[in-house]
Amino acid sequence: MKDKNQISAASILERETPFLLLNRDKLERNVARLREHTDRLGVPLRPHLKTVKSVEAARLILTNGKGPATVSTLKEAEVFSAAGCKDLIYAVGIAPQKLARVIALLNNGTDISVILDSLEQARAVVEASRQSGVKIPALIEIDSDGHRSGVVPGDNLLIEIGKILHNEGAELRGIITHAGESYHCKSMQAHQAMAEKERAAAVACAEALRAAGLPSPVVSVGSTPTAHFSQDLTGVTEVRAGVFTLFDLVMTGAGVCHTADIALSVVATVIGHQRQKGWIMVDAGWMAMSRDRGTASQAVDQRYGIVCDMSGEPLGDLVMIDVNQEHGILALRAGSQQTLPDLPYGSRVRILPNHACATVSQHAEFVVVRDRSEKIEAQWPIIHGW
Amino acid sequence: MKDKNQISAASILERETPFLLLNRDKLERNVARLREHTDRLGVPLRPHLKTVKSVEAARLILTNGKGPATVSTLKEAEVFSAAGCKDLIYAVGIAPQKLARVIALLNNGTDISVILDSLEQARAVVEASRQSGVKIPALIEIDSDGHRSGVVPGDNLLIEIGKILHNEGAELRGIITHAGESYHCKSMQAHQAMAEKERAAAVACAEALRAAGLPSPVVSVGSTPTAHFSQDLTGVTEVRAGVFTLFDLVMTGAGVCHTADIALSVVATVIGHQRQKGWIMVDAGWMAMSRDRGTASQAVDQRYGIVCDMSGEPLGDLVMIDVNQEHGILALRAGSQQTLPDLPYGSRVRILPNHACATVSQHAEFVVVRDRSEKIEAQWPIIHGW
Repeated sequence: MKDKNQISAASILERETPFLLLNRDKLERNVARLREHTDRLGVPLRPHLKTVKSVEAARLILTNGKGPATVSTLKEAEVFSAAGCKDLIYAVGIAPQKLARVIALLNNGTDISVILDSLEQARAVVEASRQSGVKIPALIEIDSDGHRSGVVPGDNLLIEIGKILHNEGAELRGIITHAGESYHCKSMQAHQAMAEKERAAAVACAEALRAAGLPSPVVSVGSTPTAHFSQDLTGVTEVRAGVFTLFDLVMTGAGVCHTADIALSVVATVIGHQRQKGWIMVDAGWMAMSRDRGTASQAVDQRYGIVCDMSGEPLGDLVMIDVNQEHGILALRAGSQQTLPDLPYGSRVRILPNHACATVSQHAEFVVVRDRSEKIEAQWPIIHGW
Repeated sequence: MKDKNQISAASILERETPFLLLNRDKLERNVARLREHTDRLGVPLRPHLKTVKSVEAARLILTNGKGPATVSTLKEAEVFSAAGCKDLIYAVGIAPQKLARVIALLNNGTDISVILDSLEQARAVVEASRQSGVKIPALIEIDSDGHRSGVVPGDNLLIEIGKILHNEGAELRGIITHAGESYHCKSMQAHQAMAEKERAAAVACAEALRAAGLPSPVVSVGSTPTAHFSQDLTGVTEVRAGVFTLFDLVMTGAGVCHTADIALSVVATVIGHQRQKGWIMVDAGWMAMSRDRGTASQAVDQRYGIVCDMSGEPLGDLVMIDVNQEHGILALRAGSQQTLPDLPYGSRVRILPNHACATVSQHAEFVVVRDRSEKIEAQWPIIHGW
């Protein structure tokens, strides 16, 4: 999907808009910050690559540029495996029809685990393992916070699933959980409590498996908030997180990062003004930003994003208040006493997004810069599809 | 972006999920319905291809498979021009840096008009016309409903822009407007009134140009609701509309179509159950559906979409209540007295989306079927990027 019209631009002030800007220095600092934290707690990180969906970005994020890693699609698994990352968890409950591609990856030398939370899935994995002669590694998903999928801690279903996997031909790897509700925590205390709840649920379930004579070498936990606010990871063998690499306004609103940590922005050009309304029109709409409005339910609603100048500094109270497919409307926040900044026709802005994963997925590539530089250092393709 | 894992599937019951299903018969009926209406009013249709973003779909939508058409990006313009559609309006206010690609299209035999609503844009278009020796065709955008961009009717700015374009080296083509507020009309009377308001504003502005001795051969109006509810198009030379081709739940909620007219759905597989909560988990999340929640502000909030069986029949009150990146949660609507349908692990559903344009843009291709058929007739690539 690389656009031949774009290859010659050497500067972010020249490249045709809209495009997706990535500050590589911020990415590297974000990764170093979480690695320091999990190193201190003595647990390895298994980054979730669904946020960046890029081989080049993954090389900066992963240990030795290789792994371990987490993916959200088998397409990601195939691309990252081909790029040398051979230690993967596919962290979406396995569908029966997807097992053939999992087996192809295993046969290709990729250590990929599936996750599941039902007897039906365990039977499908066992059946596919038997038919292929490949023991498919499987983690049992635990519902540590009521957020989404998973076996409820204490339910004997855990042991039943574990027995099918272990005794009937698959490879029971252990326990996995994701405290997705942590996105809604409103204080450091709440984040810390959620991290402990996630840890405790996963460890208890691993202990339950072991007490039943079943193996649980892996105890995998994580979300970006719980990964950052965890204080103790006793019994946990790895931590997963994804959006921490780029950060976004939802994570700022959740108190996990500062606006200045956000490595991602969308560059847009001013195409008009509706001066009597205080509106500035730009050539980036939801196609470039995504329709994600994750901050709408937070204390500060950032609408479709905070507007910055081309150095990345926020322009006061200017936000993207609304979007159509290829139009964005910039205006001051409701109640602002500031004056609308002077952004003449043809000038450029950078917009910080609500949700990095959603905004990345709207683009064919990252346009990569360093701190305090307008020079385009690289263009990194983004993986799409399933 | 065609996925080699998918090429061999012959049936929508076999192809790996999630994927984007298009019922070609519904598309053709939707197009015929609006064509009959605008033919009766004696005005040609200029379909907006930003919804389908597909050369193959465009061949069914356009007159003689060629044109005229409307586009939202220059990438669309270049792809559709190469496919033989040479009569285009690029319907986003022109940015100065994009004029070089417009000139390249004009030099390549494509009749492409730009749109604008400011003196600065008119001067940029005139300057680019002079420098290239190509008179760039331009339409002046009118703000008929306060929705987005455009010169306010009655503002003398219209004549000033017209004079610059006409006298200084560009080609003044006339007037364009889009009553985007029509999406929020709640009755047939309101739709009809909005259509008349759109028409009257555009025609009055064209008359004002002519009264000032300026040409206005084109008077272009349209949105999917106003196009369907217009009763008189006197003075209008063409009607634009896009989402009418596929329709979606927002258009159903606005009273423009029935649920059965929606030509688009996302096919997903059941990957789990949270039975105590009444949840069914599927392998389609916002990556497959988009984050668009256009029905949230309508009388009936359809959450992330209406769930249908594989024949396309809605499964009672079952909707996709929430999504994560690659997970969807199906449940009965709040307050429903129905019983959760029995959808075992591995079964498939079709989900009707809020907003066709947004859902299409999440996918690499349409998987095309006919009425009452599970056979995959074709796979049509979708255009991405700018």
